[in-house]
Amino acid sequence: MEYRALTVSIENKIAQVTLNRPDALNTMNLDFWKELPTAIREIDADARARVIILASTGRHFTAGMDLGVFMNPKNISLQGDPGRSAENLRRLVLQLQATFNVLESVRIPVLAAIQGGCIGGGVDMVSAADCRYCTEDAFFCIKETDLGMTADLGTLQRLPHLIPQGMMRELAYTGAKLSAQRAKEIGLVNEVYPDHDSMLNAVRKIAADISKRSPLAIAGCKEMINYSRDHSVQDSLNYMAAWQSGMFRPEDMMKTFAAKAQNTDPDFEELHPIRPPFSQE
Amino acid sequence: MEYRALTVSIENKIAQVTLNRPDALNTMNLDFWKELPTAIREIDADARARVIILASTGRHFTAGMDLGVFMNPKNISLQGDPGRSAENLRRLVLQLQATFNVLESVRIPVLAAIQGGCIGGGVDMVSAADCRYCTEDAFFCIKETDLGMTADLGTLQRLPHLIPQGMMRELAYTGAKLSAQRAKEIGLVNEVYPDHDSMLNAVRKIAADISKRSPLAIAGCKEMINYSRDHSVQDSLNYMAAWQSGMFRPEDMMKTFAAKAQNTDPDFEELHPIRPPFSQE
Amino acid sequence: MEYRALTVSIENKIAQVTLNRPDALNTMNLDFWKELPTAIREIDADARARVIILASTGRHFTAGMDLGVFMNPKNISLQGDPGRSAENLRRLVLQLQATFNVLESVRIPVLAAIQGGCIGGGVDMVSAADCRYCTEDAFFCIKETDLGMTADLGTLQRLPHLIPQGMMRELAYTGAKLSAQRAKEIGLVNEVYPDHDSMLNAVRKIAADISKRSPLAIAGCKEMINYSRDHSVQDSLNYMAAWQSGMFRPEDMMKTFAAKAQNTDPDFEELHPIRPPFSQE
Amino acid sequence: MEYRALTVSIENKIAQVTLNRPDALNTMNLDFWKELPTAIREIDADARARVIILASTGRHFTAGMDLGVFMNPKNISLQGDPGRSAENLRRLVLQLQATFNVLESVRIPVLAAIQGGCIGGGVDMVSAADCRYCTEDAFFCIKETDLGMTADLGTLQRLPHLIPQGMMRELAYTGAKLSAQRAKEIGLVNEVYPDHDSMLNAVRKIAADISKRSPLAIAGCKEMINYSRDHSVQDSLNYMAAWQSGMFRPEDMMKTFAAKAQNTDPDFEELHPIRPPFSQE
Amino acid sequence: MEYRALTVSIENKIAQVTLNRPDALNTMNLDFWKELPTAIREIDADARARVIILASTGRHFTAGMDLGVFMNPKNISLQGDPGRSAENLRRLVLQLQATFNVLESVRIPVLAAIQGGCIGGGVDMVSAADCRYCTEDAFFCIKETDLGMTADLGTLQRLPHLIPQGMMRELAYTGAKLSAQRAKEIGLVNEVYPDHDSMLNAVRKIAADISKRSPLAIAGCKEMINYSRDHSVQDSLNYMAAWQSGMFRPEDMMKTFAAKAQNTDPDFEELHPIRPPFSQE
Amino acid sequence: MEYRALTVSIENKIAQVTLNRPDALNTMNLDFWKELPTAIREIDADARARVIILASTGRHFTAGMDLGVFMNPKNISLQGDPGRSAENLRRLVLQLQATFNVLESVRIPVLAAIQGGCIGGGVDMVSAADCRYCTEDAFFCIKETDLGMTADLGTLQRLPHLIPQGMMRELAYTGAKLSAQRAKEIGLVNEVYPDHDSMLNAVRKIAADISKRSPLAIAGCKEMINYSRDHSVQDSLNYMAAWQSGMFRPEDMMKTFAAKAQNTDPDFEELHPIRPPFSQE
Repeated sequence: MEYRALTVSIENKIAQVTLNRPDALNTMNLDFWKELPTAIREIDADARARVIILASTGRHFTAGMDLGVFMNPKNISLQGDPGRSAENLRRLVLQLQATFNVLESVRIPVLAAIQGGCIGGGVDMVSAADCRYCTEDAFFCIKETDLGMTADLGTLQRLPHLIPQGMMRELAYTGAKLSAQRAKEIGLVNEVYPDHDSMLNAVRKIAADISKRSPLAIAGCKEMINYSRDHSVQDSLNYMAAWQSGMFRPEDMMKTFAAKAQNTDPDFEELHPIRPPFSQE
Repeated sequence: MEYRALTVSIENKIAQVTLNRPDALNTMNLDFWKELPTAIREIDADARARVIILASTGRHFTAGMDLGVFMNPKNISLQGDPGRSAENLRRLVLQLQATFNVLESVRIPVLAAIQGGCIGGGVDMVSAADCRYCTEDAFFCIKETDLGMTADLGTLQRLPHLIPQGMMRELAYTGAKLSAQRAKEIGLVNEVYPDHDSMLNAVRKIAADISKRSPLAIAGCKEMINYSRDHSVQDSLNYMAAWQSGMFRPEDMMKTFAAKAQNTDPDFEELHPIRPPFSQE
Repeated sequence: MEYRALTVSIENKIAQVTLNRPDALNTMNLDFWKELPTAIREIDADARARVIILASTGRHFTAGMDLGVFMNPKNISLQGDPGRSAENLRRLVLQLQATFNVLESVRIPVLAAIQGGCIGGGVDMVSAADCRYCTEDAFFCIKETDLGMTADLGTLQRLPHLIPQGMMRELAYTGAKLSAQRAKEIGLVNEVYPDHDSMLNAVRKIAADISKRSPLAIAGCKEMINYSRDHSVQDSLNYMAAWQSGMFRPEDMMKTFAAKAQNTDPDFEELHPIRPPFSQE
Repeated sequence: MEYRALTVSIENKIAQVTLNRPDALNTMNLDFWKELPTAIREIDADARARVIILASTGRHFTAGMDLGVFMNPKNISLQGDPGRSAENLRRLVLQLQATFNVLESVRIPVLAAIQGGCIGGGVDMVSAADCRYCTEDAFFCIKETDLGMTADLGTLQRLPHLIPQGMMRELAYTGAKLSAQRAKEIGLVNEVYPDHDSMLNAVRKIAADISKRSPLAIAGCKEMINYSRDHSVQDSLNYMAAWQSGMFRPEDMMKTFAAKAQNTDPDFEELHPIRPPFSQE
Repeated sequence: MEYRALTVSIENKIAQVTLNRPDALNTMNLDFWKELPTAIREIDADARARVIILASTGRHFTAGMDLGVFMNPKNISLQGDPGRSAENLRRLVLQLQATFNVLESVRIPVLAAIQGGCIGGGVDMVSAADCRYCTEDAFFCIKETDLGMTADLGTLQRLPHLIPQGMMRELAYTGAKLSAQRAKEIGLVNEVYPDHDSMLNAVRKIAADISKRSPLAIAGCKEMINYSRDHSVQDSLNYMAAWQSGMFRPEDMMKTFAAKAQNTDPDFEELHPIRPPFSQE
Repeated sequence: MEYRALTVSIENKIAQVTLNRPDALNTMNLDFWKELPTAIREIDADARARVIILASTGRHFTAGMDLGVFMNPKNISLQGDPGRSAENLRRLVLQLQATFNVLESVRIPVLAAIQGGCIGGGVDMVSAADCRYCTEDAFFCIKETDLGMTADLGTLQRLPHLIPQGMMRELAYTGAKLSAQRAKEIGLVNEVYPDHDSMLNAVRKIAADISKRSPLAIAGCKEMINYSRDHSVQDSLNYMAAWQSGMFRPEDMMKTFAAKAQNTDPDFEELHPIRPPFSQE
């Protein structure tokens, strides 16, 4: 697939998906909404990459929603019978949410590398990533409050699990900017870097670390951490045991022992590609 | 779309999806797995029908899975690294489950009209329908137990909500046939009819009743009954209130008053068709 | 308090709350909405009765909502800013739901004795009662579907726990009448009686049975059955044990032994009245 | 282990655990509380039986708790600091509940064959079995209400999942006897038989059916039906897929095909015995 | 209403509720328990304020429960039948919990401004506020442990969602004082200020920021953050979409664009006042 | 019981359980897996200690699993029918998880004092403790990722509740070492100490603080904090009220008042020992 709002590459088992409309502040336009889930899902399905870096270009990570999309009455209309419009609006919100859900549901980790402003829909998006890293000049802003609406694509659902409740609420109610330094202190980002280049280098190093590990073990970690957020510890332990009954086999562990003995990296098999069932006809 | 394992029609706002391979006992072959979710989703998306009848042909509703599908090593392989095969198998099960989940997630009711045997995958399928009706010679059988495996496409997840737990367990553990009469007594089917024709006529009459009612009101009922099964009453009441804040507007009610005054059927607007977001450009 | 839509009495530890507007088909008018929760709560708070019979007068139990209430724009208005109207509508639904929730949250059982039609809001109401009994000519109807709206006061949240899912859905989608006989077969009512008088006599006998038992034991039963519907068995067992640590003391059991030895009814202490905290100053 | 309150046998892969104190109405005395969970767990751990019949002797299945146990102040004391006694009482209830939980948590089905009275603790017990069968003269009674206390060992937690809510509540509030016939109508028992012998013969036949099927497939069914009762359908489907990734392998299915071709019963491998981890040293 | 334990004011859409018994260390006496929920609910119902500051007077925010309230046997009595006293005690705890629940359930944010000691019931109370701010000399103490009891009004239920689990447990088990500085580090308070005046000024500035934003958007944020804490992300996203179907209309957004163009603050409509249903007659 | 992998002592109501195989880096060998849950449970059952310190010896807290245990085919075998091996593997994982669950389920707090490396299974273990303290040279490592497997004994289920999600995921995906200082910043440990001795002294002081408080109050705190992690705030408040109805009695509070008046420590009664029900025969 050809991408217009994104640049997509895979190298050394590391995929990078980059927002590439810096002149438009990487706003989320129609192309973006179509391409992001496609790109992420294809990378996962191909099983050639073991980790995804979600990056951007220019001064700001993203200014969020391209409001022009919503101003176009073809895209969102509240005309006609109001009940049916509401039913339509509900589905539109669910569809847009699904765009970011894919970051969470793919089998491989997604690392967001954030420079400058991460605004509105940008916060919804990076809240669904596995880990966040940023530059010193980065800032986060729940812009929706400033625009007279309630953020509806994940910020209010996922961010409360990432930062302390009190800060979460102040940021949501005021639309205030959260600085990079404070974002690290409260646990939103794992690390802050001096500039865009040093951040990308550091994130690539973390990605390289991940890419050398068993993709099956990593996929298990991601599934379990996702699951644990939403279930009781007892349910999560039980799910772990069922999972492990299928996924744990000693082959990968043997490879790590052999590799250590030979001072090399273990050569793990990739996950199976994802195909529609019975697609081979 | 052209269908091979199904016949699909829409008439008077009633869609009918019919399994049409009676000579093969309407087993679920590759075509079936591809076509069923497509057909159901398209009917919902088009918003021309307000109810779906899921029917079949020949002596038996369905004999369930076409085992040839699974015997083909291209379709399911447990070769290679066993952990990765297990990960692949898990996803295959989720994908096949999704086929039947669509009966539950569409906005309009699905009425299953069952003649003769409803076996194995057939039980998984009709458990996901809204209502079940059958002929006197119908029977239900959790065949998977007989084949040395655990049913995995919904029977053990949905049927316990449809019939008493004790009967559920006996049927699952023994693979015994459940007769039409007993199926009605324990609540699995709403009504039993003498033969295939009388059943279809009766089900079409119920479908016609549904098709005259406000599709928005019906969609709300389906969403709420689905939701209530899986949530506490308090959560469900709260969800109802949020839903109603958008969906309840007095227009449809006014139409019923006007229609009653004029002794006609009210002429309700259809639900909006479902389209990918922003697809109109 | 003086009641206008209801008659309220307490005799021999049995309270009876009777809808008393038979000429208006006992529709739920403004008085009803104000008085029902007040009456039920006061009976519980006083702790003089150990069980409540919810009955009605005339040919029909209730025709449901008095639509005039909603036609009055003072009571429900969707004018002005639509978002704020929706917020207001949501709260109205929650407030009306709370009217029926009280039947569930009081400490003592509520037995509904239903003659003739139990329609629309009537189904929402009796679904929140502990037990339902009816006359041969009784019928139940989810009328809201017929009026172009989704029932929103509990029918779709509680009734699916009372009757088989398939019947639940057919009744909701079609607005069809459910007969007394079929209501018993599918578990909605415990018993059907020839006429209003024989029903009331029978229900009073059941109420008398309840009123002779320890009100603390009964309150525990009600709390636990409510709780079990909405929680896992493991959570419910755990809650039971915590409850019992406070509520189980052998005094009531000793009284039953003593009474049996003397061939009398045990003389149990009433529950404490419910008062606002610290209100006695 | 030697049993005093029970008789335990295993024959043809069918275990039978029989209450053997008919002269004492099979009340649950100290021996019973110690022996039942031990017996059930050992049968499961040994993996020699594929199903358990829980039966009794004499005129009545069981009269429930031997109250002498509780009258002994050594067994239950509410002396001393009341808070600490309450903490102790809570744990006692949890411990007694655990006795019956084991019927649910073992890997193989438990079929209860009930003659005459099944009273008090008997209802708690059979509610935790997989299936219930009874004689024509059987009856069920939530006796605790009659004794001035709230049943606390599972009746109020599991029975509401087995019978309609309205009947559940009437039985709990009144302590009324539920007849065999009505028990079948409302789904509590699967079948009613003329007398004790015919019941045992029939239940043994069902057990024999179960014992010929793959014990791994049956164990999966039991785990899934247990799980589905307490979780959403979506969670249950997801758990099923994880389970199947480990447990589904085509060997057992192949055996059913081969057996059918040769007109014999398939010869399935038993489940592994349960041992403490690393116990073999 | 006249308040005795509180001072209540509304200015510029900012309400302030101030504990005004500094000489009694602002302990929670009878007046407090009656007045706090009334005051908070009335402010919400009136819809004249868009945010509430919860403040105090004197050297300490509050010393928690006025123990004299509980020493008075009229207020809490464990005399008489112990089971019934326990039932009464349970309800008393629920009633007192409800006092603080109201801080969470009102539609508008509550900002707690804490000077000096915040002790015992004070921690229960501020844990239910949206955001916490404090002075340098502030400290927090789960005093109940020191008094030989388990905190029961929310501290153990809400504080674990506000601070790391390990700190939560140490504070609960030891009753140790948590300093202002450490409280900020672990996320309990958003900011620490040199003294009472500078804190109140800063909190008023934050409140002013909130008060300029759309009250409907803010109410949506509060509802969603509350909801997300207690539900899975998937349930929360789904609830968000239903909510938005009713609450999102572009009017408020248009006002923000217009205001920005004119360099003014947007003039949003207030939320509707909360009235009992049908109360206007 | 004699312990080989552990040293167990109780002094001044403080129990200490110490890993005592420093030459083997305190790896978790067969003895460890048998002894740890036994030791912890016995301390709780005896009710002579009010708090447990979990400590270790030598340079490193623990290097995690003794891999020799798993290399022994007697302990874990994936031979034979793969489905049955998977069922066996699932139970093994559940059994090993149960070893650490006991740290959470005992009534008294467990304080982990960690020096040097806390690796693999060590992280699973200390995640189940109530509080964690460490030395400056301590570090934490989710070693399983490095060994090609998914950690399955609690790390992925409990650690996400202890530290920010973003850090959790990076640590799990990379197997990176987490330093003591960063562990404190992100809330994993409560405090960092210069060396092993100063840590143990400080932890003993905290334990002494706990041991002077009412063991019933502390047990209530632990139960509630455990419960709140896995349930909604509303469910948790409700559970609190039921608990308190049994456990709250003013005796302990009176003792604190009396002790304060006399400037002594209150002399609280111990919790009742835990015995099998009816064990006194």
